[in-house]
Amino acid sequence: MSAEIIDGKAVAARVRADVAREVAEFRAATGRQPGLATVLVGDDPASAVYIGGKRKACVEAGMADLHQHLPADTAQDKVAALLDELAVDPAVSGILLQLPVPAGLDGAALIERIPSGKDVDGLTTASVGLLARGLPGLRPCTPSGIIELLDAYDVPLAGTPTVVVGRSELVGRPVSQLLIARNATVTVCHSHTRDLAEVCRGADVLVVAAGRQAIIGADAVKPGATVIDVGMHRTEQGLRGDVDFPAVREVAGRLTPVPGGVGPMTIALLLRNTLLAARAAAGLS
Amino acid sequence: MSAEIIDGKAVAARVRADVAREVAEFRAATGRQPGLATVLVGDDPASAVYIGGKRKACVEAGMADLHQHLPADTAQDKVAALLDELAVDPAVSGILLQLPVPAGLDGAALIERIPSGKDVDGLTTASVGLLARGLPGLRPCTPSGIIELLDAYDVPLAGTPTVVVGRSELVGRPVSQLLIARNATVTVCHSHTRDLAEVCRGADVLVVAAGRQAIIGADAVKPGATVIDVGMHRTEQGLRGDVDFPAVREVAGRLTPVPGGVGPMTIALLLRNTLLAARAAAGLS
Repeated sequence: MSAEIIDGKAVAARVRADVAREVAEFRAATGRQPGLATVLVGDDPASAVYIGGKRKACVEAGMADLHQHLPADTAQDKVAALLDELAVDPAVSGILLQLPVPAGLDGAALIERIPSGKDVDGLTTASVGLLARGLPGLRPCTPSGIIELLDAYDVPLAGTPTVVVGRSELVGRPVSQLLIARNATVTVCHSHTRDLAEVCRGADVLVVAAGRQAIIGADAVKPGATVIDVGMHRTEQGLRGDVDFPAVREVAGRLTPVPGGVGPMTIALLLRNTLLAARAAAGLS
Repeated sequence: MSAEIIDGKAVAARVRADVAREVAEFRAATGRQPGLATVLVGDDPASAVYIGGKRKACVEAGMADLHQHLPADTAQDKVAALLDELAVDPAVSGILLQLPVPAGLDGAALIERIPSGKDVDGLTTASVGLLARGLPGLRPCTPSGIIELLDAYDVPLAGTPTVVVGRSELVGRPVSQLLIARNATVTVCHSHTRDLAEVCRGADVLVVAAGRQAIIGADAVKPGATVIDVGMHRTEQGLRGDVDFPAVREVAGRLTPVPGGVGPMTIALLLRNTLLAARAAAGLS
């Protein structure tokens, strides 16, 4: 029996259509337009592609593209000054500093200048603290996108034995917290975990964000489990994930492909975060 | 076979003696004395007892007792103003606002005024964010005390299947993160967990912070496991924990008693946090 393939492209398109509709309602109700200030320092080609995709999606959702581009040799205090301006600019709902920044700049210190109300990437210490405390705040996009995917396929989470492989700041840790907040019973695995396959076989929901290609094979998957693959590796055969897709497909109940699974959700949730930030700034819930 | 009883009183006494020695070294090296500002609003008898114990321990460790007592009817902005003064006072290494504050005051908002460098309880959003990100910062006392107990008994954590029962802000969540940072494989359980006993039986280290008396019986403990009981319930038979002590004692390899297990560690770690804060403020590591 072959797993149902979770269609991240389709779910992301629905989220983006919902956001576009809600942006139109927001504009009609408030007379204001949500705006996303993407900040790119330097000319890294990959970063330029990522930023381009975010800007295009932003415009398609009816939000203002308030992109800022600084030369690669911009000094730390100049980048900080720009972020501080954006922080107080009422036209700016969300701020996204594209990482990595050029060598010589302290990206972590720059990120901390973004106020939590505009932190649409959910990366500042304040946003991370709000998530860890279970308080309202903007959540990081990829972890939120994973929850959105699970919800789109009606995967039950409350009381569900769930395993997260990986404890990265960007995905593993925050998705674990979001899953715990949804009342899943969550086990966090990592490079020190003994008998990873056995631990994973206990999961009805398995989220793999290990950053190691094909680390999860069929022996690590409970028959019928839902498997979310956050990995993204460029190989000669094309993009591959952390999951051995052909093998796991024969065991899992549902499975995300790479590409076309988690990937498209990240931009969709960035748009939703920008709308949420605009709403909160306007005093709407 | 009966479990080894983990002697929290003895470990706490060692930590406090270590802190006292290091405070003396700090004073000799810098000419400054670490100081703890406990803040009590009102006259709740239980709070007065807790604060009294903290102040006494502070003096015994050679640190300055900078206690502040405000009447129960103090307005929010007056308490806030006091906390702001303490925040900039160089004699104050650490600030502890005793909770709960009287009805009518917003304790959560008051706590947030404590700068993370003086947040010896580790309760502010900033401190929680630093812990969740794995960055340096002051950690909450009871969770740190649990790690200290495990270390005192040479309990291996790296790669160890570990279960935490409870996801409270004060204990469950932060101790899970501390255990993950120590490379344990951590499962977080809570009221929605299915077959709690079975999940717990998978643990070599079991930390119980559920807040429900005797929720963990012998059937929930792997033979030889180390069991840490964070519960504290006043009963007609005396203080009891979240673990059925007589039954679990016959199965576990090591077990904390209630009282005399985790309890004494909390004040010991508060003292250590105050010293760490004083060192950081003095530019020492």
